[in-house]
Amino acid sequence: MINRLIEKIKKTNAPIVVGLDPMLSYVPEQVQNKAFGEFGETLEGAAEAIWQFNKAIVDAVCDLIPAVKPQVAMYEQFGVPGMAAYEKTVAYCQEKGLVVIGDIKRGDIGSTSEAYAVGHLGRVRVGSRSYAGFHEDFATVNPYLGSDGVKPFLKVCREEKKGIFILVKTSNPSSGEFQDRLVDGRPLYELVGEKVAQWGEEAMGDDYSYVGAVVGATYPEMGRILRKIMPKSYILVPGYGAQGGKGKDLVHFFNEDGLGAIVNSSRGIIAAYRHEQYGSFGPEHFAEASRQAVLDMVSDIRGALEAVK
Amino acid sequence: MINRLIEKIKKTNAPIVVGLDPMLSYVPEQVQNKAFGEFGETLEGAAEAIWQFNKAIVDAVCDLIPAVKPQVAMYEQFGVPGMAAYEKTVAYCQEKGLVVIGDIKRGDIGSTSEAYAVGHLGRVRVGSRSYAGFHEDFATVNPYLGSDGVKPFLKVCREEKKGIFILVKTSNPSSGEFQDRLVDGRPLYELVGEKVAQWGEEAMGDDYSYVGAVVGATYPEMGRILRKIMPKSYILVPGYGAQGGKGKDLVHFFNEDGLGAIVNSSRGIIAAYRHEQYGSFGPEHFAEASRQAVLDMVSDIRGALEAVK
Repeated sequence: MINRLIEKIKKTNAPIVVGLDPMLSYVPEQVQNKAFGEFGETLEGAAEAIWQFNKAIVDAVCDLIPAVKPQVAMYEQFGVPGMAAYEKTVAYCQEKGLVVIGDIKRGDIGSTSEAYAVGHLGRVRVGSRSYAGFHEDFATVNPYLGSDGVKPFLKVCREEKKGIFILVKTSNPSSGEFQDRLVDGRPLYELVGEKVAQWGEEAMGDDYSYVGAVVGATYPEMGRILRKIMPKSYILVPGYGAQGGKGKDLVHFFNEDGLGAIVNSSRGIIAAYRHEQYGSFGPEHFAEASRQAVLDMVSDIRGALEAVK
Repeated sequence: MINRLIEKIKKTNAPIVVGLDPMLSYVPEQVQNKAFGEFGETLEGAAEAIWQFNKAIVDAVCDLIPAVKPQVAMYEQFGVPGMAAYEKTVAYCQEKGLVVIGDIKRGDIGSTSEAYAVGHLGRVRVGSRSYAGFHEDFATVNPYLGSDGVKPFLKVCREEKKGIFILVKTSNPSSGEFQDRLVDGRPLYELVGEKVAQWGEEAMGDDYSYVGAVVGATYPEMGRILRKIMPKSYILVPGYGAQGGKGKDLVHFFNEDGLGAIVNSSRGIIAAYRHEQYGSFGPEHFAEASRQAVLDMVSDIRGALEAVK
């Protein structure tokens, strides 16, 4: 799957991923009203609204991008119907040829991580049959529990040719509280980065590993160091746009081959119609606003990468 | 809810929680066959099997215990139908008067943690209405992203009088890989424990905080230190039984008031009928085997606590 992701990035010439994190408040009124008309103001109605919102955006941008990253929390908040909308979104994006990175940030002790790995990336056995519950192509993983929480994911990645991105340095303001603490004079995120590189050796694609890392766009200097610590790991970079990261901050997340990183934007794309810059599209044309925001983001990042060539 | 948990612990005189982590392999054949007969060997069939298994065990033990801890991964592996079985289990246990600790180990950046907090402990707004998606009473939370990943949970806990247990020192063998690393000469888990104590001050019940901690039974010496660092935090102690922890190892997780800790056993209770010790019950009487295992666990822990009085 890492090979396929890279192939898609090269084909689109767009190392970006659109975060499908649909807060209900992002969904234009006409979409909400239609869904509530059909299902009432219920969890099912909310799930239908975010699904229709996602579908319109995916239809509008799928030829421009290699991948999407649905954030499961935004679906999980709507209970079981929300999880059904998540699964439907994953399936639809895959139908449209997109690579799907499930932003699930799961991680537990061994036997429990195995259940998460099976449910999201693998297949679960039921009697004589087996099923892929949420069938994402990649998933994000929290490393706080150590190797035995991560290894079940590696096993499933090898079997299914899927991938993971492990949280190393997250984009939020208080990520430093634990992640930056010095251990033998070096920040914890560097130690996690070293483990990512080690785990990655156990599951290599052609040029890059199935095991990638999450490093926030908001910390470009740390991105530069982590790039060197994990040369074979793809870096998933959240925090572009709404959280403050810009194209020129991101060049050091990439390797000299122009590969090695994929930059996520969520709100900046899916809620573009609410930003002043794209306000002229109006809520009726929210999906076209998203398309324009993708074009602008791609051009910002391509420009920044060209400038350092 | 922490007040209610403590009241229930005093009433049952049993500081224990039964982990409802139903691997399909734990579910006796007659229960599986009945479910597959009705729904086929499908995700729905698997979900029905684990739900019927849970229900029988809950019916058999609910008068003995204050709380249960369903591990969401074991349901999530069965996709959307699995999540529906999780919600049904939470609702049924609450009907039976049990406090429900959702072992979800979620944690993300601020806005995303808010969605998790709302989906599991709070209520989500849909138009003019609001709904509680998974409605657990407590949830476990991963602290790796720092304060802004935890604070949305605190907010919901204060509003809804619910609680969280934050991962401090987990029970698995490789938990030390990051959690034990020395920061200024002290292990990381102690720093996390100090933050738990601080966060806990922002959300106090009568004697204990809504903010508790997870500390593995497999690390009793660390439990003793963390008990002192977080005097007002309830400690949820996994790792008893199948993972190797015993009653006498656990006394230092408790405060002098005999409170302050609640010990989890999962496999040891729900799959008791498969252990030699309870083999005579047979798979037909799996729920009665679970009841006997609860009685034995309570007696082991009561005995250990009596011995140090």
